[in-house]
Amino acid sequence: MRAFTPLTLDLADTAADLLQRLQARAPRVHCLTNAVAQNFTANVLLAVGAVPSMTLAPAEVGEFVARADALLINLGTFDSERQAATEIAVARVCEAGRPWVLDPVFIERSPARAEFARALVVSRPRVIRLNAGEFEALASRTPSEEALQEYATDRSAVLALTGATDVVTDGPRTGKILNGDPVMGKVTAMGCAGAALVAACLAIEPDPWLATAAALLSFAVAGECAAILARGPGSFAVEFIDALARLDRQTLRATARMG
Amino acid sequence: MRAFTPLTLDLADTAADLLQRLQARAPRVHCLTNAVAQNFTANVLLAVGAVPSMTLAPAEVGEFVARADALLINLGTFDSERQAATEIAVARVCEAGRPWVLDPVFIERSPARAEFARALVVSRPRVIRLNAGEFEALASRTPSEEALQEYATDRSAVLALTGATDVVTDGPRTGKILNGDPVMGKVTAMGCAGAALVAACLAIEPDPWLATAAALLSFAVAGECAAILARGPGSFAVEFIDALARLDRQTLRATARMG
Amino acid sequence: MRAFTPLTLDLADTAADLLQRLQARAPRVHCLTNAVAQNFTANVLLAVGAVPSMTLAPAEVGEFVARADALLINLGTFDSERQAATEIAVARVCEAGRPWVLDPVFIERSPARAEFARALVVSRPRVIRLNAGEFEALASRTPSEEALQEYATDRSAVLALTGATDVVTDGPRTGKILNGDPVMGKVTAMGCAGAALVAACLAIEPDPWLATAAALLSFAVAGECAAILARGPGSFAVEFIDALARLDRQTLRATARMG
Repeated sequence: MRAFTPLTLDLADTAADLLQRLQARAPRVHCLTNAVAQNFTANVLLAVGAVPSMTLAPAEVGEFVARADALLINLGTFDSERQAATEIAVARVCEAGRPWVLDPVFIERSPARAEFARALVVSRPRVIRLNAGEFEALASRTPSEEALQEYATDRSAVLALTGATDVVTDGPRTGKILNGDPVMGKVTAMGCAGAALVAACLAIEPDPWLATAAALLSFAVAGECAAILARGPGSFAVEFIDALARLDRQTLRATARMG
Repeated sequence: MRAFTPLTLDLADTAADLLQRLQARAPRVHCLTNAVAQNFTANVLLAVGAVPSMTLAPAEVGEFVARADALLINLGTFDSERQAATEIAVARVCEAGRPWVLDPVFIERSPARAEFARALVVSRPRVIRLNAGEFEALASRTPSEEALQEYATDRSAVLALTGATDVVTDGPRTGKILNGDPVMGKVTAMGCAGAALVAACLAIEPDPWLATAAALLSFAVAGECAAILARGPGSFAVEFIDALARLDRQTLRATARMG
Repeated sequence: MRAFTPLTLDLADTAADLLQRLQARAPRVHCLTNAVAQNFTANVLLAVGAVPSMTLAPAEVGEFVARADALLINLGTFDSERQAATEIAVARVCEAGRPWVLDPVFIERSPARAEFARALVVSRPRVIRLNAGEFEALASRTPSEEALQEYATDRSAVLALTGATDVVTDGPRTGKILNGDPVMGKVTAMGCAGAALVAACLAIEPDPWLATAAALLSFAVAGECAAILARGPGSFAVEFIDALARLDRQTLRATARMG
């Protein structure tokens, strides 16, 4: 039997608490991410008070991960050096017992990348963030709510299916976040940066389902705040960083829409 | 005998039509571009409705190019992995009969890069975008109008020589775009992103001369719009993306200056 | 005996002069820098009138450095290709007798990177820019003023220790810059871009201590100007580029705080 847990305004408070704790604790988040997303991802992490590092050199990535509080693996640029670095980084983060997030970007476009992603899932990412097409390539199933819940249960992972509505499930618990703005799809690396924020929240919150839902709520609400001030996708990206840096409890509570 | 075709306001309408078709058709554009330009290029493509991908891993670049509607090869960072990826990508795009753009950045500074560019031209890029110094390094000639026309005819390619004035020729047809703003030279990756917009327009317009001229016109007019609102090169880059995303027929017709 | 040289308003004038000379002379600055910082660094250099190049391909980096007026080596992403490129670039810049800057980012997090940085110092960077933790990893000493002065004297280099206060010493001369804004720590690549500005100033000013102090003063004053207009770290990065591009003598003189 599976309990359904709709999200409530409590999540807005949890998100506000997590944002305060991020500023206070400044967790280190190591990101193996694609070259397109590196700069924006680093600025998103800095905006919330986390400390990003991004090296992918096999000779040193292990040292960086050993000193990090969480790890993000994004497959958006999938060269041989990043593959080698990923294997070292995942081994090290598992050894340290710290959380990591898998973001299997565009695996539906490349069989080699999809296979690599499936092999990585065996090493137990705490969270997998993906969209509908990526879930199909990863799980070989259509992304129904039930399919997501089963996959999450089988893998002991949180699944975060992002889109117009975000679905966050660990199997027993499933919540939906309705916030966000269509312009977010017109700025490169928004999704990648969202996964980095999930990693930052995992570094300080032991319940990965709650950490993921709170991170995605903060991200989506910041998007709505940015959309009010932006005049197009260029200014949206700038306003988004500003909105995330000043996001507070009152705004989260007033704006959050969940199911 | 060579007919000269000065550009007219018809091009402003063609550009407006192409911008509408880009938003409607959302063509996929794969970009092998330099690391400095990747983020800005992706945001330019997203702003006009195209879908960028950027991987350069030899193991998967072929799959991405096979699913793309156009390809951009930019030589601005010329490492060994990008070279290998370029060879695979060009072979695949030719096999699929789809268009590709060559942007031989800075080849006048590096003999190795110039030689690589000359070898690529044999694989028939639909468009070559370059500045005066790059043309000299590629063609071993000074970039007179006649030299451009002859090179374009010989290679069955469109040549787009960008600068204060852009010259677009396929040999028989030659047009000039006088729009633009000097601040465009103070923002990194502007030229690279312009070539990406050419690739996006090639994906949906079969006449490569028209697609190139329309893309460069839209790009230059967006630059003039951005310059009105910008307070320096930092805000110019932001305003440019916003201006491109909202560029319409009326603005194009009112602003276009051609010869 | 060691003379202490507190900085005076003369430095504001020197900085203003250097900014004018940069716009007039447009020096070429080759940067081997990390992928996170490349775009922002290029835009900072363009904003002050310098001409950046960024390739790291071993096959051509030598040609680019041979044609450059100064070189920046930033160790922020430390992959094998960048290591090979660094060795070629440093050999070439030394051969040409031109200045280079070492920015040993995050060497305190990676023994391999620290060892590489120590080996590079033997090739005599004109300036080493670092923070307290990086100095400790490089010199195996706590970063007291005396330790900095001794290290600078021993290595015949200028040391620029950046932080809330910047300390610039060549051994005999030591000055402090008190300008800046805390938001600068919330924007990725600010420090990396500051080191690139130092390299640009070294290209046109033969006294490396003066060039470094003037560059860091301009950078910090631009940061204060940006902070007045910014609404968060996103808009700060944009305003910073704008402020640097329009920075003038009057603003420098009115804002500079030194010791």
